Amino acid sequence: MSGYFDGVPHITYEGPDSENPFAFRHYDPDRVVHGKTLREHLRFAVAYWHSLAWPGGDPFGGQTFERPWFGDSMAHAKAKADAAFDLFTRLDVPFFCFHDADVRPEGDSFAETRRNLEEIVDYLGQKMERTGIGLLWGTANLFSHRRFMAGAATNPDPDVFAWSAATVKSCIDATHRLSGQNYVLWGGREGYETLLNTDLGREAEQAGRFLSMVVEYKHQIGFEGALLIEPKPQEPTKHQYDYDVATVYGFLKRFGLENEVKLNIEQGHAILAGHSFEHELALAASLGLLGSIDMNRNDYQSGWDTDQFPNSVPEVALAYYEILRAGGFTTGGTNFDAKLRRQSLDPEDLVLAHSGAMDVCARGLIAAEEMLEDGGLEAARAERYAGWDTPEAQAMLQSDLASIANRVEAEGLNPDPRSGRQERLENYVNRFI
Amino acid sequence: MSGYFDGVPHITYEGPDSENPFAFRHYDPDRVVHGKTLREHLRFAVAYWHSLAWPGGDPFGGQTFERPWFGDSMAHAKAKADAAFDLFTRLDVPFFCFHDADVRPEGDSFAETRRNLEEIVDYLGQKMERTGIGLLWGTANLFSHRRFMAGAATNPDPDVFAWSAATVKSCIDATHRLSGQNYVLWGGREGYETLLNTDLGREAEQAGRFLSMVVEYKHQIGFEGALLIEPKPQEPTKHQYDYDVATVYGFLKRFGLENEVKLNIEQGHAILAGHSFEHELALAASLGLLGSIDMNRNDYQSGWDTDQFPNSVPEVALAYYEILRAGGFTTGGTNFDAKLRRQSLDPEDLVLAHSGAMDVCARGLIAAEEMLEDGGLEAARAERYAGWDTPEAQAMLQSDLASIANRVEAEGLNPDPRSGRQERLENYVNRFI
Amino acid sequence: MSGYFDGVPHITYEGPDSENPFAFRHYDPDRVVHGKTLREHLRFAVAYWHSLAWPGGDPFGGQTFERPWFGDSMAHAKAKADAAFDLFTRLDVPFFCFHDADVRPEGDSFAETRRNLEEIVDYLGQKMERTGIGLLWGTANLFSHRRFMAGAATNPDPDVFAWSAATVKSCIDATHRLSGQNYVLWGGREGYETLLNTDLGREAEQAGRFLSMVVEYKHQIGFEGALLIEPKPQEPTKHQYDYDVATVYGFLKRFGLENEVKLNIEQGHAILAGHSFEHELALAASLGLLGSIDMNRNDYQSGWDTDQFPNSVPEVALAYYEILRAGGFTTGGTNFDAKLRRQSLDPEDLVLAHSGAMDVCARGLIAAEEMLEDGGLEAARAERYAGWDTPEAQAMLQSDLASIANRVEAEGLNPDPRSGRQERLENYVNRFI
Amino acid sequence: MSGYFDGVPHITYEGPDSENPFAFRHYDPDRVVHGKTLREHLRFAVAYWHSLAWPGGDPFGGQTFERPWFGDSMAHAKAKADAAFDLFTRLDVPFFCFHDADVRPEGDSFAETRRNLEEIVDYLGQKMERTGIGLLWGTANLFSHRRFMAGAATNPDPDVFAWSAATVKSCIDATHRLSGQNYVLWGGREGYETLLNTDLGREAEQAGRFLSMVVEYKHQIGFEGALLIEPKPQEPTKHQYDYDVATVYGFLKRFGLENEVKLNIEQGHAILAGHSFEHELALAASLGLLGSIDMNRNDYQSGWDTDQFPNSVPEVALAYYEILRAGGFTTGGTNFDAKLRRQSLDPEDLVLAHSGAMDVCARGLIAAEEMLEDGGLEAARAERYAGWDTPEAQAMLQSDLASIANRVEAEGLNPDPRSGRQERLENYVNRFI
Repeated sequence: MSGYFDGVPHITYEGPDSENPFAFRHYDPDRVVHGKTLREHLRFAVAYWHSLAWPGGDPFGGQTFERPWFGDSMAHAKAKADAAFDLFTRLDVPFFCFHDADVRPEGDSFAETRRNLEEIVDYLGQKMERTGIGLLWGTANLFSHRRFMAGAATNPDPDVFAWSAATVKSCIDATHRLSGQNYVLWGGREGYETLLNTDLGREAEQAGRFLSMVVEYKHQIGFEGALLIEPKPQEPTKHQYDYDVATVYGFLKRFGLENEVKLNIEQGHAILAGHSFEHELALAASLGLLGSIDMNRNDYQSGWDTDQFPNSVPEVALAYYEILRAGGFTTGGTNFDAKLRRQSLDPEDLVLAHSGAMDVCARGLIAAEEMLEDGGLEAARAERYAGWDTPEAQAMLQSDLASIANRVEAEGLNPDPRSGRQERLENYVNRFI
Repeated sequence: MSGYFDGVPHITYEGPDSENPFAFRHYDPDRVVHGKTLREHLRFAVAYWHSLAWPGGDPFGGQTFERPWFGDSMAHAKAKADAAFDLFTRLDVPFFCFHDADVRPEGDSFAETRRNLEEIVDYLGQKMERTGIGLLWGTANLFSHRRFMAGAATNPDPDVFAWSAATVKSCIDATHRLSGQNYVLWGGREGYETLLNTDLGREAEQAGRFLSMVVEYKHQIGFEGALLIEPKPQEPTKHQYDYDVATVYGFLKRFGLENEVKLNIEQGHAILAGHSFEHELALAASLGLLGSIDMNRNDYQSGWDTDQFPNSVPEVALAYYEILRAGGFTTGGTNFDAKLRRQSLDPEDLVLAHSGAMDVCARGLIAAEEMLEDGGLEAARAERYAGWDTPEAQAMLQSDLASIANRVEAEGLNPDPRSGRQERLENYVNRFI
Repeated sequence: MSGYFDGVPHITYEGPDSENPFAFRHYDPDRVVHGKTLREHLRFAVAYWHSLAWPGGDPFGGQTFERPWFGDSMAHAKAKADAAFDLFTRLDVPFFCFHDADVRPEGDSFAETRRNLEEIVDYLGQKMERTGIGLLWGTANLFSHRRFMAGAATNPDPDVFAWSAATVKSCIDATHRLSGQNYVLWGGREGYETLLNTDLGREAEQAGRFLSMVVEYKHQIGFEGALLIEPKPQEPTKHQYDYDVATVYGFLKRFGLENEVKLNIEQGHAILAGHSFEHELALAASLGLLGSIDMNRNDYQSGWDTDQFPNSVPEVALAYYEILRAGGFTTGGTNFDAKLRRQSLDPEDLVLAHSGAMDVCARGLIAAEEMLEDGGLEAARAERYAGWDTPEAQAMLQSDLASIANRVEAEGLNPDPRSGRQERLENYVNRFI
Repeated sequence: MSGYFDGVPHITYEGPDSENPFAFRHYDPDRVVHGKTLREHLRFAVAYWHSLAWPGGDPFGGQTFERPWFGDSMAHAKAKADAAFDLFTRLDVPFFCFHDADVRPEGDSFAETRRNLEEIVDYLGQKMERTGIGLLWGTANLFSHRRFMAGAATNPDPDVFAWSAATVKSCIDATHRLSGQNYVLWGGREGYETLLNTDLGREAEQAGRFLSMVVEYKHQIGFEGALLIEPKPQEPTKHQYDYDVATVYGFLKRFGLENEVKLNIEQGHAILAGHSFEHELALAASLGLLGSIDMNRNDYQSGWDTDQFPNSVPEVALAYYEILRAGGFTTGGTNFDAKLRRQSLDPEDLVLAHSGAMDVCARGLIAAEEMLEDGGLEAARAERYAGWDTPEAQAMLQSDLASIANRVEAEGLNPDPRSGRQERLENYVNRFI
């Protein structure tokens, strides 16, 4: 379609023995695993921003990628869309995701910018219809432009709040129009650099009201997708307000929004927050907040957001295990919020990064399904907590400290610890990977 | 009193020009700063565990300290109490803090352990009466003994929950008896090592119910001190449930306890969670949860809990600034939850570690008071957010996305960013330190 | 033999489809892979200290393990040795490793301690003869006892240097006697806590002279094993002198010992130093210093030495790839310097932790061999650097800046970057795992 | 001069009681401290790149600063130089530093780029002559342009090596022409992202030969300044080859260059490597490699290079203490390799960031001088190591393990540890700050 990927083959499933680098070895989209195809389980999406719009810079160097669609005109935006759908098609992914800033040129005014967005949304809509590719989620970029440098909803300047509100409205409209399954908010600049100039409490109130307006608007226009917040602990700001799942939960409870908003959880952001990905997924599931995932990996030893394509089957398997335990995706999916390494210059690098990651995810999901089916972990867990299922234990939970203390002394209680069997369970997991 | 510190002088205030290592150069307890003495502002407490009970081991080596009171008998416990009050007196601190396990020998049964605690509490009470030294807070050690290895309230075994509940009851009783100003809960083992054997949701429910029982018991016996949770992100467990202030806030909201429980915030734990101490203090204050502090420092480059005595005036000043902005301590105080370095073997090391830290805190608090009095930071902050104080801005907060979007286009809004002036404010702070 | 492991089966190879937790699924010791058996390739060793001597404590809690051989008498030491060889036999490992302090009780004097060591060395020697199990390496524990708190060779007190020298002599003697393949030095206390009391340069001189004496002694007694230094960046001390491979290389060069001493490289220590394990292995190989490995894993997000059993096949595969590229082990081997999690209380946990790790290593080594055999990585590397193989490029290396600058201008050089193909290569690796 | 800073006052010394934000409160350049003025001690330099050329972007957002001199023409370059010397003059700094890419536009060919550099060097030379401001060091930017994405000297493509060599030649020429005191090499891209495509050993050989050529060229043209390498552990690449002081020492020894090259040590890079700044300074001093410093600070909890202006007097004091102990700067100085926060938009922010930092450095240096004069730390250190000054201890160093072991047993040696007195020494330091 776009010419850019000419010469790079479409990726199709050839099975685990294939030595063809341009083939799936594990991701057979139509393979049925426990009642759903892999396509339905994984719900892959390509992220427009990194895969199409990222120039390859880092803090010490500029652009390395040379894409013919880089530029600020509407013609460039359409060429980018052509290349995007060419890529999506070659990978056979069912979904994509975008920020407004990824898909349209910035205009000279808010109104012109909005009109640019609407024009390109039409263009994307036609392509979606033609290809059957859907929109996993849309979102607003409220962090790149200098006007957001001190926050969007949490900005000390109410005009920036207004600009941000208007931008989110236009992005929800776009997402609604394209039948997006979700709408995501990532507060890239919602945080602060120094407490010396910051009023934490005031900024939280602004953020709470902003999110409430978003919820109200969603209902007003009848958007049926899920609203998702994406937690991240730091970077770009030193102290991001949406640090992790637990922090966002407290925020939602504070503003009474815990039944209106769920989470989009990213592996790399979990890592930066000091958690494993599966911890964040399990916690979100236990709080009823699991929405969707950004699948990537963060270098464990680099203290910034490296956004690499996932390549570790064991890690991915543990993540999907928690997702499957929670019932699997509903509106959510597996979005590759992942950057090529900046030295990976060639069109084929872009294709292979995705196809390799899709294979890794497929292996991980299949392993997770098999573990869940086998039931070994769930049985071990049930046995470990079995003591709590007795009527006595449940009665104790309804009693009080003094009664319990009496019983401890009366019965001469002296509990003996039991093995946690961690290594045995780790060995068990390795059986499936 | 105890003999151990014989030869180490009592520490008294000699002024900033003193070259006597055994003198306060800044902590003049009776100096009045804005209506309160430094003693009243700072409310220093010595932590029994590190200062009296810690043997100096680390993961690669055993005991280095040789204290005559180390041992498991009641006689040892009393000798330790003698030394403790000798130390408190030499430092002229108004408070101390303890865990049950710090002050009494473990018995062969729960009942014997409880009786040991009651006996030593009597002994401590007599000393408190004699010296006028008060109890800042008591707490239960629910993490050292192997029975707690898989958690206390969150243990898979309900008998460990029972043991823990009975223990907390005995420790609240002891704290109440000694007129403690607060009762603290630190969940050293409330967390997990591997998700493979853990049910996060179930354990959170256990912890919520446990804390509710503690609140109920406090009211039942008429204990008027504050209940405080102490957040920590990791260590000893990989994933601690009380990660940080924001996490504990969400937990309290979940179980409806946000008006019953406040926080004891430790510098070192804030650091391990990826936050600055002042962030955690300011956040707690904005949520109405600021209770008390554990003042120490964590080596920024060691990934474990180093619990060193504070020695950086600039850091301490920023912490007290947030405390003073929030109105200063009420029931809380400045507890030194700090360990000597394990090579600091001598009695004088123990005294000097505290006296030096007290001086650092006094300098910090005085600088903070002066900054607050000068008002430069508050004025800069007020100016930065002034746009929000207009009726238009307040009206916008009550409106909706569509109206705001209309206004943005109608007025051709295009907000221009203003300098955050971070370096100028940092220079300002350095004027006071 | 010891009774402790009764009821835990011997672990034998049953193949990848086995569901028996007490079987190897990948480690078939006699399977030949490119001319060597897996036993010969991997050269597994059990570390006496963690596997036999570690009580399960952590900085916040005491002993959790209850081993019948814990105690300070020679009888305990022999019971421990009985259990050790029982474990080794059940796992069918060809080697073990020990510190003096692991195997013998401390005496009241240096001489008594030495005699204790000699007695237990006899006992171990008999067991080795009976079982055919060899000693991969011996070493001296110069870090646990309080006398070493300020260093061993680098201690400010020359008497501690003397004690340490005498101890190392006795440990080399023991290693020699038991035909150890290597002798290892890990400088657990060779480092410092605060520069305020430390003379870096002086301590380096002491360390250099100490190591030279060890080299001299080795030759004097005709010990033919390799001397190995084990780098570690921090913990126990804040600044360890043997930070990483590059640091030790500089140290060896400084004292002219780079042809006398090689390295024992630990995965967890590499991680703490900010490197990947494979980086440290490749660097050591390129410097001619690769000796042996301590195979474990460090939790990437815990800032201390977690010493967990390895469980990630992809990570292990990349490590063995570097070892195989460098020619494989000669005197070195795969030592499990790994601790059970402290909740893993049961005898079977100890066995399964090792057997699972052995399986992980076997899978990793086989994958590494297959990658090397396939040659894909080496071919890609050769192609990437091919420009350097031209006579022009080699001539340039022998020329000078001015000539090169002339040529750049004369030829109008303007090099165009080529893709680094990282994701493609990562996909390639995943084909083998 | 430039117009840009009009309205921002020149900064002059007004003494510690001044409340004028546009004044030095501690940096009195002509104050004599132990025989040298503060100007001579501190030798401040402004870094052209961050202070003049940095646009304020971060990985999540673009330019925030609007400088009239931003642009790619020679006219812009001259406007930038005008602004630069305006800034230097207002701050009254004796030195500046630059990369080629900071001061000249890139041309269409190497030759044009070189001519651009020569033209601007003339322009700078005139300004230097007029103002008396000197060049602390020059350097080449071998990391920003995409041609360097895979390294400069260590690039797999020999043409990039050639380009880099030619560039360094032109930069040494420029530095020589401007009577620079030093020439610095920072290997921003000398490292790697993935071992899968990298030949570590080969790249080290390239780097060694490159540095040798630089040394040869320096002598050839009679440049008398020092050559300095600047270590950094990671960022931009995951594995930088010049990790830290110890690593560079090993590299210099390997290529026999340890007497030709010294080090430029940056606080932020030390932090990222897991060291304190003073550790790196003390280590370099002990190895005879201390050259110059980049004074900034790195946020301890952000895992990337934050390059903030220093604001902690205690930290700075400890750094200057090591520098003064080593004899103070010779060719080196205090270069502010520091970025404004990207929200600090105003001209006055740029001035105040430097002036505040200069005050912090002055306070630190004065405190360090006073500590050194007082001698307390040196006396404590001497006492701690006094045992080594005996003839017996020195003789032991010349002996061997067996003799020492004999003596340990014969004399019944049993060394008793002595306190390291860390807290006491920390209190001592706080007396001077």
